[in-house]
Parts: sequence; C-alpha cells; structure tokens
Amino acid sequence: MSSQFQPKDPEYKARVGASFDEQTVMRLIGASLGRVEPGLVEIELPYRADLTQQDDFLHAGISSTIMDSACGYAAFSLMPAEARVLTIEFKINLLAPAAGELFRAVGKVRKPGRSVFVAESELHAIGSGEDKLVATMVGTLMALYPQ
Amino acid sequence: MSSQFQPKDPEYKARVGASFDEQTVMRLIGASLGRVEPGLVEIELPYRADLTQQDDFLHAGISSTIMDSACGYAAFSLMPAEARVLTIEFKINLLAPAAGELFRAVGKVRKPGRSVFVAESELHAIGSGEDKLVATMVGTLMALYPQ
Amino acid sequence: MSSQFQPKDPEYKARVGASFDEQTVMRLIGASLGRVEPGLVEIELPYRADLTQQDDFLHAGISSTIMDSACGYAAFSLMPAEARVLTIEFKINLLAPAAGELFRAVGKVRKPGRSVFVAESELHAIGSGEDKLVATMVGTLMALYPQ
Amino acid sequence: MSSQFQPKDPEYKARVGASFDEQTVMRLIGASLGRVEPGLVEIELPYRADLTQQDDFLHAGISSTIMDSACGYAAFSLMPAEARVLTIEFKINLLAPAAGELFRAVGKVRKPGRSVFVAESELHAIGSGEDKLVATMVGTLMALYPQ
Repeated sequence: MSSQFQPKDPEYKARVGASFDEQTVMRLIGASLGRVEPGLVEIELPYRADLTQQDDFLHAGISSTIMDSACGYAAFSLMPAEARVLTIEFKINLLAPAAGELFRAVGKVRKPGRSVFVAESELHAIGSGEDKLVATMVGTLMALYPQ
Repeated sequence: MSSQFQPKDPEYKARVGASFDEQTVMRLIGASLGRVEPGLVEIELPYRADLTQQDDFLHAGISSTIMDSACGYAAFSLMPAEARVLTIEFKINLLAPAAGELFRAVGKVRKPGRSVFVAESELHAIGSGEDKLVATMVGTLMALYPQ
Repeated sequence: MSSQFQPKDPEYKARVGASFDEQTVMRLIGASLGRVEPGLVEIELPYRADLTQQDDFLHAGISSTIMDSACGYAAFSLMPAEARVLTIEFKINLLAPAAGELFRAVGKVRKPGRSVFVAESELHAIGSGEDKLVATMVGTLMALYPQ
Repeated sequence: MSSQFQPKDPEYKARVGASFDEQTVMRLIGASLGRVEPGLVEIELPYRADLTQQDDFLHAGISSTIMDSACGYAAFSLMPAEARVLTIEFKINLLAPAAGELFRAVGKVRKPGRSVFVAESELHAIGSGEDKLVATMVGTLMALYPQ
C-alpha cells in the first residue's frame, strides 16, 4: 500500500462505499466511486448536458459536489469505525472551464486529526486524449463521535 | 427600488432570467429563480430526497450550486449588457445541517468592479415555521468582455 | 447591551483584554483593543510606514493580523472561562487598497458552537473624513477545553 | 532550470528582489527573500518573541504576511516587466501550531494567466532538527497593466 496513512478501521473501503451509496445525489448526477485508499478517494462523473451552467460547462456546484465528497471520504477513510464525517467549510478555485467527457475528483487528506481533518481535492477534466486540471479545493472536515 | 446599486443594463432582469434558464442543472435539481434586483438575486430549491448526502441533508455541493449561481447572477445583474460572468473562486461555511422543506439562496454583491466582483450568499432552510441560516458563501466573480 | 449573544463568562472583557495583551505582535505593529462586547471585538491600528507592501498600502498580512484577532476574540468572548481559542482557517477578500490613517477591524461571531465558531470581520480604512470598507474575512475558530 | 514555467521577463529575479525590498513590513518582522525561480518564491523568517499570539506561537497574521508575499512574488516572477501584482483574496489553513526557530514560506504558481493567477504556499516550521508543515495557503492574484 503506497499511502502514507494507516487506516484506523480495516474495513474502511466498505465503510466509504456504503456511505457513498447513501448519497442519493450521486445517483442523480451519475457519479461513481473510484479508487479508495487510506486518505485518498476518487469520484468520477461522466459529462452530461443536464449538469451545466449557461456556457455548457459543468456547473461549479456540481464540481463541488464530487470534490467535497472526495475530500470527505478521504478523511472518512482514516476515521475510526464509530465516527461520522461532516464538512465544515471548503474553498474551490476554478482554474479553467470544466469541459470534458469525464471528470475525476481526487481527494487527499493533507492533515489528519482526532476531530479536525484538512483535505484537498483536484478536479481533472478528461477528454480528447487530454487530462486537464480544472479546479482545486481545500476543505475542513470534522469527525463526530457518538456521545 | 431599495438597492444601493444602479444597473448598467436596464434589461438586467431579463438577461439574468435568460441565463438562468440556460443552466440545465437548475432544472435537474428543481431550482427556480426568485427575486432579482440590482446586485441581489435569490434562488429557491424545494427539498428532494435525491439531492442528499448520507444523513439525508442537502449535499453541500447542491447548496453550493444555488449559492454560487445566486452570487454569480447578483454580480451579473450589475454588469453591462455585453459582459459574461465567470466564477473564479468561492468559499462556503456550513453552519448547520441543511434540513428543511425549502432552501433559499440569497446572493448579494459586496463589491462591484469593472472586471472583479465580490459577492456573498446566505442559504436559508425553511420548514416547520422556521427560517434558519445554514450556510454562508463568499465568492469572486469576473466580468468577461468581448475582445 | 445590544448584542444578540449572552456571554458564558461574565468576566469576558477582562479575559479578552488579558489575552490581547499577551499577543506581542500587537505591540510591535501598534494595534490596540477597541470595543469588546459579547461576540463582537474591534481592534484598531494607526497607519505606519513600516507596515506596508510595495505600493505603500497596509500589507494584507498585517490586515489579516488584526482581522484574525478580531474574529478570534469575538469568538473567545462567548467561550466559557476555561476555554482557549484557536484559529483553524480563514479567508480574506481584499476589496480596495488598504490606504488610510487608521484601520479598524470589526470582528463578529456569525455562528457560535461548543467547539466550532464561525466569525467574520470587516476592515475599515479611516482617513480624510472617510470610512471605507477595504477587506472582509471569514474564519473558523475552535474552543479548546482542558482535558 | 527545473521550473515548469518560462519567465516573460528575463530580469524577473531582480524585479522580485526590488519589490520585496519595498515591502517595509518585511524589515519590521525580520523576513528575507530566499529562493526565487520562475513561479516559485521562498521567504524566510526567524522566530522572534515579538511576533506571537497569546500562546507564544507565530501569529497567523504574520504567517499570512510571508505566505501571501511568497504567493504574490511567485506570480509576479512570471509576469511581464510592465505588470504590477495585487492579491485579491487568499485562504489559509493552520494545520499545527507555528512553533520553531525558522519559518519558511514556499510559494508556487498553480495556474498562471494573463490577468488572474492562482498560487499556493506552504509554511514550514524548522527547529530541533525537524521541518514541519504548519500551514497552507491558496490565493488569487491579479496582474495589473499600465493603461
């Protein structure tokens, strides 16, 4: 395993997958879970004409949807089995128009903690033989524990 | 008109409405344009079970979708007729779970410019007779002019 | 008292003042504590030629210094006596050049919590009979409790 | 030269150095310019007891001061000779207490443009044989051209 992080829950992949399946919005937009490693999660989204803003690019909110979940599940993959994950804030920079056939959000934990995690994600637009970085996100996530 | 801003294009409402109609993602999620004034735009979104994250709250990316467009159109409402609008970055703080029957994003221009606008939006969750602030956003928008 | 917040510690003013006095950087730059109310703190900084960037405006980092402390102490004013305060992240938007004779950072709590607070601050540049908003900040603060 | 970027102005190092020397705040806090490459700038700051917040760590605003300038000069290093640089916004995440003997801000351009640049910086705290990442920043910079 190439990751620098050790998962606290050996069942982290199943736990991430089960939670992802409960995110109904992912089915609505057609997103699917990709690679899941300790502290790293990918989400893929094929382009669809009903996900766009006024210039036919992926809407920044849809980019945010998969990038936020990629950050959140990257953090969640490192949390103990009893924890829940909550995004408390994120910032996105839109570097280029989100044009492509497939979008891949790659989320990585930058700093794990007991309760506060900082994660980053990149959004890649893939198409016409190109893989282009179109957005970056940094977010802060909380682990919530049963009282 | 109560706004502190003077629109440069008297047809700003029609221009905002026409652009909003081209955002196909708004139809997908069921969002509609509300109040449009110079420098202020509201977008409303009824709760739907297919827009949620794993705890049945509105996904932060969907909150971002209507909040970003509220910021963007608030800025766009002040731009001259020939300009296009582009979000270059935004930050969202999630203050409380996005639970309610109706969500209203209220976007307001904080600082207009020729090319750079700063706008803010609030997300209100309305339900059970309550109107609760659940998220805040600040974003930077660019006006793009024909060369 | 006009504030919407009730302080948990009746000695909040003294506690804020004592902590501010321990911020050695405030003496270095010449900043002083202004108004302190529950959830609201002001910090003032007279212009000095040794606080600037290359165009003789207040450096954005110095603006951040007083705006971050204004946010932090606004949050701290609402915390119980045993808590410490820690900034976990902030974002600043620079709306106009920070030119003036006096700068006033006004920090306000937007959302209090037991452990997570969201606060905002505005930076006003005062001079030549004008009071101009030159920057806005939103930050996330944590309350840390003795174990 | 290992950089992925080509400078537009062959005199970029001298231009960055001259501008840095005009940032009076750098002398006040004791910061100095380190490595300058196309799209990459480092700024170093030895710890001083008069730069701290209430717990004797470097104040987040002082961290921001050198990180913002590192981002700004990384962008400036890629701009044509006639351009000026302006920060329009940044976000900082504080990952760990800023404790150490020396702080190094490493700024890198993530996305250059004609007028809009996105840059990132990391803050490393060095001491006791350790080099620790204590903060990350992402910022948006503008190139301003003579009219």
